[in-house]
Amino acid sequence: MTNHALAPIPAARYGERIDRAREAMTRHDAAALLLGVGADLVYLTGYAAIPLERLTMLVIGRRGVPSLVVPRLEAMAAARWPAAASGRVTIVPWDETDDAHALVAGRLEAAGSAGAGAARGSMLVSGDLWAMHVLALRAALPGRRFGLATTVLRELRMTKGPEEVDRLRLAALAADRVVASIAAGRLVGRTEAEVAREVRDRLVAEGHEVGKFSIVASGPNSASPHHDASDRVIQPGDPIVLDIGGTLDGYGSDITRMLWVTGGDPAKGPTPEFLRIFGLVRDAHAAATAAVRPGVSCEAVDAAARRVISAGGHGPEFLHRVGHGIGLEGHEDPYLVAGNAEPLREGYAFSIEPGVYVAGRHGVRIEDIVVCGADGPIVLNEAPRDLLVVAG
Amino acid sequence: MTNHALAPIPAARYGERIDRAREAMTRHDAAALLLGVGADLVYLTGYAAIPLERLTMLVIGRRGVPSLVVPRLEAMAAARWPAAASGRVTIVPWDETDDAHALVAGRLEAAGSAGAGAARGSMLVSGDLWAMHVLALRAALPGRRFGLATTVLRELRMTKGPEEVDRLRLAALAADRVVASIAAGRLVGRTEAEVAREVRDRLVAEGHEVGKFSIVASGPNSASPHHDASDRVIQPGDPIVLDIGGTLDGYGSDITRMLWVTGGDPAKGPTPEFLRIFGLVRDAHAAATAAVRPGVSCEAVDAAARRVISAGGHGPEFLHRVGHGIGLEGHEDPYLVAGNAEPLREGYAFSIEPGVYVAGRHGVRIEDIVVCGADGPIVLNEAPRDLLVVAG
Repeated sequence: MTNHALAPIPAARYGERIDRAREAMTRHDAAALLLGVGADLVYLTGYAAIPLERLTMLVIGRRGVPSLVVPRLEAMAAARWPAAASGRVTIVPWDETDDAHALVAGRLEAAGSAGAGAARGSMLVSGDLWAMHVLALRAALPGRRFGLATTVLRELRMTKGPEEVDRLRLAALAADRVVASIAAGRLVGRTEAEVAREVRDRLVAEGHEVGKFSIVASGPNSASPHHDASDRVIQPGDPIVLDIGGTLDGYGSDITRMLWVTGGDPAKGPTPEFLRIFGLVRDAHAAATAAVRPGVSCEAVDAAARRVISAGGHGPEFLHRVGHGIGLEGHEDPYLVAGNAEPLREGYAFSIEPGVYVAGRHGVRIEDIVVCGADGPIVLNEAPRDLLVVAG
Repeated sequence: MTNHALAPIPAARYGERIDRAREAMTRHDAAALLLGVGADLVYLTGYAAIPLERLTMLVIGRRGVPSLVVPRLEAMAAARWPAAASGRVTIVPWDETDDAHALVAGRLEAAGSAGAGAARGSMLVSGDLWAMHVLALRAALPGRRFGLATTVLRELRMTKGPEEVDRLRLAALAADRVVASIAAGRLVGRTEAEVAREVRDRLVAEGHEVGKFSIVASGPNSASPHHDASDRVIQPGDPIVLDIGGTLDGYGSDITRMLWVTGGDPAKGPTPEFLRIFGLVRDAHAAATAAVRPGVSCEAVDAAARRVISAGGHGPEFLHRVGHGIGLEGHEDPYLVAGNAEPLREGYAFSIEPGVYVAGRHGVRIEDIVVCGADGPIVLNEAPRDLLVVAG
């Protein structure tokens, strides 16, 4: 809920965002934005609705005050959030036996976006709107073209304002502290799942609303990039990929650091083979970070990391893109991946997280959250990027 | 993860479910099931994938072994779950620069469900598949009719087997213990948000993987059915709607009990007006529960509660349906709502949760999870349904 280290985002900001979204709608010939529960809705209204099956939808048509269509039982909760409380959107409740999708179509007619004589243009839905609503809206708006709202909203949402960077930074520093405390604590003899649970608790203790994910991939499991923390007991001589994150005042944290657990036995230190891979990934991470500046393409940042790892002979084992945008969603635009020629701009925020995964043996990943500054990268995480060799 | 009080669901069960889904596909003239991350996927494969933007999709066509299309970086994680580990589905990984939706279309051609000369029939997607995937699949499968997988899967998923009822029962009893400990603890002087956080911690301590929601609606906030726990400080003389739940071995808990906090002051006990409403809701809850048996319609259970509340003069303030199905999703079929004439069958599991909400004053809701047994209701929650008057 409220984080007292942060001033709330003022209601006027939501008004500015809605205005800018409307300008972008005109440029993209969009008839309407139809935004369900999720990050687009939070971005434009502040309303963090419950992700359930009843339709909640911000309806922005060509003219008039946007409508926030909500189940009646949530109308009181919805009205408390900034855009509604300040009159920038109108709450439109529906009852359990109403047809909520027909209600949306009716609001679109009133806003000059649908019905006889309305201008054409696309109906743009949020990317994470559920299929049940997509199909019902198609049926309620026959003959209309559907697309994704990201067409209109991506540039706005990718460019983080100062209030957003403050939140990303607080989230990053909180996650840094969790990494430090896990590395300083007991690991040998505990299961991955036990450590993962401690991570989630510590994320909350450090100011997150929720710990969303906690990859604790030990020993050979470290070769599985999205390993699900298991009942495997951590042993001396294990590498551990620790990839954790959650949300703080709605904004995501996401950090990966590498541990090596010796159990206090000098004979159980990192192997030369592992250290070589670790060094490659560390160098790739530094190269990708150094490549960040306005005008550089997303794929060029990926390539900067991939070049280092390929030169070291592990190209095919760098299984994934180098990074993803982060903000109100854990993964969002821009994606730093081959094929994405889009240039970075000041204020974009994203992960940089190269990795190498040798099946059946071990894996390495290092990840920070980075903001593209006017002159280069602004790295939000401050935790040391060295291999954390611990007795555990 | 693993709950040691429960034997794992055997791999053979997933095979049976896939076979039954295929039979239902034939009955409903479905060309394919296209199931993304979520409950349908867990039900048929056991795979609880991470809900992110990369496509994960179980593709069940007219013939052949189903394909589980997954991002390559998650292939190792996906392979560990029962249906894949036992060879009942084939893992099909895709790389970051592949077109995952085209890959799905290709698997459908191989399975006789798409392409030149293929039989027709609908492409049925999971109800919570993201719009970005729905639109991309429509583009990859031009001219095909799309519908929702629930058409085929709902009867299967609504009818809980003994392993599923065991999980729902354990989840319910764990939630019961959390209610008891919150009612026995300190409330006065703490914020709703603090108590909500304690609820989530206790749900986990009692065996849930995660505490998913925690409505702590005190004083006038109790009139907002889906109130978001706030910074309001709980006072002597407050009613509290405590509506909490999470998942235990994947299955949901969901219980609502009413508290009244006196602060130890006899003058701050429940008001006669509140007690009258509480009595109405308790009677409505009992009437709806008593109405449960095979063959009774979903809407008849809703009506049984509504009749009591309307007779007491509060019909318009019973703002929502009487209940929702529960299982691998917190809300799922069947919905107990006016207009749903579908009969209950043995093994259906759902909430019964009438409520009355007097705007600006107070609200009351009482909720249990109930399974439809051969001879009537099997109530899973055992926590007393009385008003819990506590010093707090």
